[in-house]
Amino acid sequence: MNAFQLIRRGTMVLLALFIATTALWADEGMWTFDNPPIKQLKEKYNFTPTQEWLDHVRLASVRFNDGGSGSFVSPNGLVMTNHHVARGQLQKMSTAEKNYLAEGFYAATNDQEVKCPDLELNVLVDMVNVTDRVMAAVKPGMKPAEALNARKEVRATIEKEYSDKTGNQCDIVSLYNGGEYWLYQYKRYTDIRIVMAPEYTIAFWGGDDDNFTYPRYDLDMTFVRVYENDQPINSAHYFKWNAKGAANNELVFVSGHPGNTSRLDTYAQMEISRDLQYPLTLGMIQKRLDVLYDYSKRGPEQSRRALSQIFGLENGKKAITGQYQGLLDAKLMAKAKASETEFRAKVDANPEWKKAYGDAWKTIEKLIAKQRKEFGGRNYAGLALSSQFARSARTLVYCASEIKKPDLERLDGFHDVQLERLKMRLFSPAPVYKDLDEATFAAMLQWAVEKAGAEEPIIKAVLKGRTPAQAAKEMVEATTLDKPEVRKALFEGGAEAIAKSDDPFIALYREIEPELRKREEQQRKEVESVITPAAEKIANARFAVYGKTMYPDATFTLRLSYGAVKGYPMNGTKAPYKTTLYGLYDRSLGFDQEGAYALPQRFWDRQKDLDLSTPANFVSTCDIIGGNSGSPVINQNAELVGLVFDGNIESLVGDSVYDETANRCVSVHSAFIIESLRKLYDAAKLADEIEGK
Amino acid sequence: MNAFQLIRRGTMVLLALFIATTALWADEGMWTFDNPPIKQLKEKYNFTPTQEWLDHVRLASVRFNDGGSGSFVSPNGLVMTNHHVARGQLQKMSTAEKNYLAEGFYAATNDQEVKCPDLELNVLVDMVNVTDRVMAAVKPGMKPAEALNARKEVRATIEKEYSDKTGNQCDIVSLYNGGEYWLYQYKRYTDIRIVMAPEYTIAFWGGDDDNFTYPRYDLDMTFVRVYENDQPINSAHYFKWNAKGAANNELVFVSGHPGNTSRLDTYAQMEISRDLQYPLTLGMIQKRLDVLYDYSKRGPEQSRRALSQIFGLENGKKAITGQYQGLLDAKLMAKAKASETEFRAKVDANPEWKKAYGDAWKTIEKLIAKQRKEFGGRNYAGLALSSQFARSARTLVYCASEIKKPDLERLDGFHDVQLERLKMRLFSPAPVYKDLDEATFAAMLQWAVEKAGAEEPIIKAVLKGRTPAQAAKEMVEATTLDKPEVRKALFEGGAEAIAKSDDPFIALYREIEPELRKREEQQRKEVESVITPAAEKIANARFAVYGKTMYPDATFTLRLSYGAVKGYPMNGTKAPYKTTLYGLYDRSLGFDQEGAYALPQRFWDRQKDLDLSTPANFVSTCDIIGGNSGSPVINQNAELVGLVFDGNIESLVGDSVYDETANRCVSVHSAFIIESLRKLYDAAKLADEIEGK
Repeated sequence: MNAFQLIRRGTMVLLALFIATTALWADEGMWTFDNPPIKQLKEKYNFTPTQEWLDHVRLASVRFNDGGSGSFVSPNGLVMTNHHVARGQLQKMSTAEKNYLAEGFYAATNDQEVKCPDLELNVLVDMVNVTDRVMAAVKPGMKPAEALNARKEVRATIEKEYSDKTGNQCDIVSLYNGGEYWLYQYKRYTDIRIVMAPEYTIAFWGGDDDNFTYPRYDLDMTFVRVYENDQPINSAHYFKWNAKGAANNELVFVSGHPGNTSRLDTYAQMEISRDLQYPLTLGMIQKRLDVLYDYSKRGPEQSRRALSQIFGLENGKKAITGQYQGLLDAKLMAKAKASETEFRAKVDANPEWKKAYGDAWKTIEKLIAKQRKEFGGRNYAGLALSSQFARSARTLVYCASEIKKPDLERLDGFHDVQLERLKMRLFSPAPVYKDLDEATFAAMLQWAVEKAGAEEPIIKAVLKGRTPAQAAKEMVEATTLDKPEVRKALFEGGAEAIAKSDDPFIALYREIEPELRKREEQQRKEVESVITPAAEKIANARFAVYGKTMYPDATFTLRLSYGAVKGYPMNGTKAPYKTTLYGLYDRSLGFDQEGAYALPQRFWDRQKDLDLSTPANFVSTCDIIGGNSGSPVINQNAELVGLVFDGNIESLVGDSVYDETANRCVSVHSAFIIESLRKLYDAAKLADEIEGK
Repeated sequence: MNAFQLIRRGTMVLLALFIATTALWADEGMWTFDNPPIKQLKEKYNFTPTQEWLDHVRLASVRFNDGGSGSFVSPNGLVMTNHHVARGQLQKMSTAEKNYLAEGFYAATNDQEVKCPDLELNVLVDMVNVTDRVMAAVKPGMKPAEALNARKEVRATIEKEYSDKTGNQCDIVSLYNGGEYWLYQYKRYTDIRIVMAPEYTIAFWGGDDDNFTYPRYDLDMTFVRVYENDQPINSAHYFKWNAKGAANNELVFVSGHPGNTSRLDTYAQMEISRDLQYPLTLGMIQKRLDVLYDYSKRGPEQSRRALSQIFGLENGKKAITGQYQGLLDAKLMAKAKASETEFRAKVDANPEWKKAYGDAWKTIEKLIAKQRKEFGGRNYAGLALSSQFARSARTLVYCASEIKKPDLERLDGFHDVQLERLKMRLFSPAPVYKDLDEATFAAMLQWAVEKAGAEEPIIKAVLKGRTPAQAAKEMVEATTLDKPEVRKALFEGGAEAIAKSDDPFIALYREIEPELRKREEQQRKEVESVITPAAEKIANARFAVYGKTMYPDATFTLRLSYGAVKGYPMNGTKAPYKTTLYGLYDRSLGFDQEGAYALPQRFWDRQKDLDLSTPANFVSTCDIIGGNSGSPVINQNAELVGLVFDGNIESLVGDSVYDETANRCVSVHSAFIIESLRKLYDAAKLADEIEGK
């Protein structure tokens, strides 16, 4: 589900509000840990979490900075997540000879565990509300661009202040579209080692077809261990295991990192998403997939190299198609329109509110009307830079300019407190495949030419009179940016090294840097400095009208969702609350064991050892979205009963609106994990560690 | 699926036409055996059935006059059908002490087989096209009512002529909405004995929720044996068994008796169905269900008594809701409108056609506009007679009047050649439950009063100043029509016995007979005599414009459907072409074995004996509808590979239009039948007979 992050959009409004204020609470919301849904839990489930419970759950939850979630499941730094969250790392660790994705992996002892090339995990150790400080930086009378700048400066200042004080990673998080600002302090881990991963075929069983659907039978799990100073850390806060799992209708929680939702978007924003952004994004994904499938046909090694990207894109395609379908639903749109109309009427009915917030929607509408008019070929120009080497070159060239500036004047992403993360990615030892890069670079460049024309300044600079294929071939052949040590030397050499480099990608970025910066500045001036204060106004209007009864849109920060284990109406009948191993064999045979429905041979060889009535996957009403992949599902006692790995097809519209009728979170059952470790993967030691035996 | 028959509607137009004329043939159509889809089979599947093949298939196919289909599966009169087709008989054979529905039944030897109370089976032994003779009866210049009469008379004449000649049951069938008339000659069997039926729980596994859906795991089978002269008949034409079943994508056929479709309806007819008829029908079903569920709550015996009716109504509710949803689909309706517009334009473009057929649509539109205006309380008046005793009384009172008339002058249903069937039903020894009848009678009468008013003439006659509850109580208590011998004596006593009877239901019908006849006559004059010739015109226009490339709407007569075994896109993923016994256990456990997902204990006790990879159910693109229940699925060699028992939820719109994308016929796999007979039901002898061992 992590491809949700592919699309990052604007701002605010209130579908969800009216659902949340109906008689019985729906199990809606991705709540921040400072504002858990105490009232809903009490009234609907007669459960009140203590502060101790909340702190424990938060500290046992882990963010995978690749775009997923996880949790500690033993006191010895053992972290559980999805196979598809760790998939990128497994891919990077693999070679033509040793394919961790295809074959799986198990380290029976600590010294067999293999370090991930560039994985960073975070634990949220503290949260401080800094809204007043951020707001105070904007003085009356400031022009929009000045205000934006002041806000950015104060954010960087606060981040640095907390970072210096604690030594932890400190990020300012904007919630409720600017209604609140929080300083989130993370303990950061970078020595992460793979402990166990099953075969790709069972982890992604049913493939793209079954992805985002249910009933399911996936074993989408991976275990990693967190090290510091070459020793497993002591993870005092971890989830105790409950191999029985949750019963039908039982209250459960998901603690994880939903990436991005658009539930507070204004109606105008929903419309432009529907009319322009989604079709554009889906077109780009499809184009890239076509290229990757073509490349895969060259041979099994090429197929292996492309697999991880294909997975991500197919996943994104299905997710975004589902979101798009939601916006194409006239009823959903009419409801959104009605909610916004009511909200605006309430604001306008109060003279004070009207004066303070009333113009915000119109401001956004005007901006969007302008964006619609300007929409065209230019939106495709960036595709001319679809190369991993281009991304490295951009980082290096920008670093050379930025790092010499005073910290507060730098672009976001280049502050001192952010450099550790930047370097980790930039110096990653993960292999880069030149032939794969050339194939996608050439094809996307070709497409950019078709859409935006060869005279578009960026495209022209890339082509330099060559055909797209020529340009891609020559540049990729000549570059040495595939070598981590070259990237490191260029980074450390700073402006001088960059100026001297004759690498074609570095040269390109030296040339286009002024044009890119001009465009970025224009975006800040014309879009961000307009939308940010408007979004803040709407956020504050919402607090004024409805109080703080809402959760903020997802921001890839830690959230708590709650709900019941529960089936749902599906395709004329009911989907069960859980599936079992019987069903895995049924579905495999139903497709004659073909394609994504083949099972690893061990599932047939050892079938007789298995208890086929073991629950495989289950569903709950917990409100999740991409980024929640790998989140723990826990019960009232904070015992681990499942591992989130997907939402059902009915949940995809959840980007815009949550509907408890059929929106379901899909998880691997705790019993399946234990049964498979013990009986299929000879990993009793790992099972013992998890079960505390 | 048999509740499809609940709704019987009008006439024609051509959605299907345009699908059938696209490049590659869709697997559409319920073809008559005189006009099989030779061209489609040749082009798409490279198979051409011989006349011998067609005759064999026809003669091995059986109609269950209750509203289903079946087939001979051994040379000794053994017939296979669905459990739900035989359900009514099993219910009628059951008592509080011996519940055939709950417990199932198996006769290990012929002498243990139990006779069905009132079951009639038919085999279509001959078909003769009599269109010219029927058409010739209507002379130029006849008034509509005269023409209708002439047509009825000639039909009765032909039926009698063939009946006298052959001794078989002979029915005139109107095809293509009056475009053709055929004399269908049936061999009629009435001594039918139950051989084997599994428990209701596994035959209707998953209950109303899973009904009309897939993936499924039903063992919806029953075996009966046909006797004549107290001996099993010699059924030379029977289907040989193929326990391997059909492979994915294999060509298969269904030979059965689809009850009713509306694919040739005009757009105006589709609209009135959507706006008035479906909502009315669904309201009536729901009302009746409410009553039956209330009644069931009185105790287990009441629950047993109501089960069969509830099954039928829930089935009908789901089916009709699906059909209704189809008509609510704006896209489907727009397509229907466009097709009709094109058809009418073609007719109008040819002066000769325009003159002959051009006014037919307008005629129907006018009639429907009138029906819309008059629609109201009166449509509910008939509900005042919702009693089984009322139905018997009507038959008896009408018989007394009709039978003394010359045969040709009688109402349809009372001709000599139809009396055997009438008597079989009227004299049925099946138990009638007075308390159940009183409950439904009282409630529906109450509803009729609410909708049509107590002064409505029919309702007034029933009430006689009493409350609905009083009227129902007094009449049901006093009647003796629950006794077959009473009904027989009244039938045989004729007009004199009827005149003297003081049974309250007989007395009621004596009183309201004139009013009922007046209304029936009005219906004939104002509706039938208008719509019949208009429908004929459209049928002939279709032959003129498109040739005889079409199949007629379903008429509960024998049809041949064809298609491939094939999965389909479902709810974001794919439905497999088959399921297995693994899946049965999966789905049972997924619902904690509760309610309709409980399995008979033998399925757990003997699970170890079963091969769980045995296919359970499978789907094919064969075009079927209610009435096809119990049909054989056969391969190119006319070997039996499955037993039709349902359509998927996507097939319900098939009443109006067939869409190969997801319309699927759902069948029990031949292997499941053998596996269950041998390993679960100790019925090896029956399995041997079927497999010819």
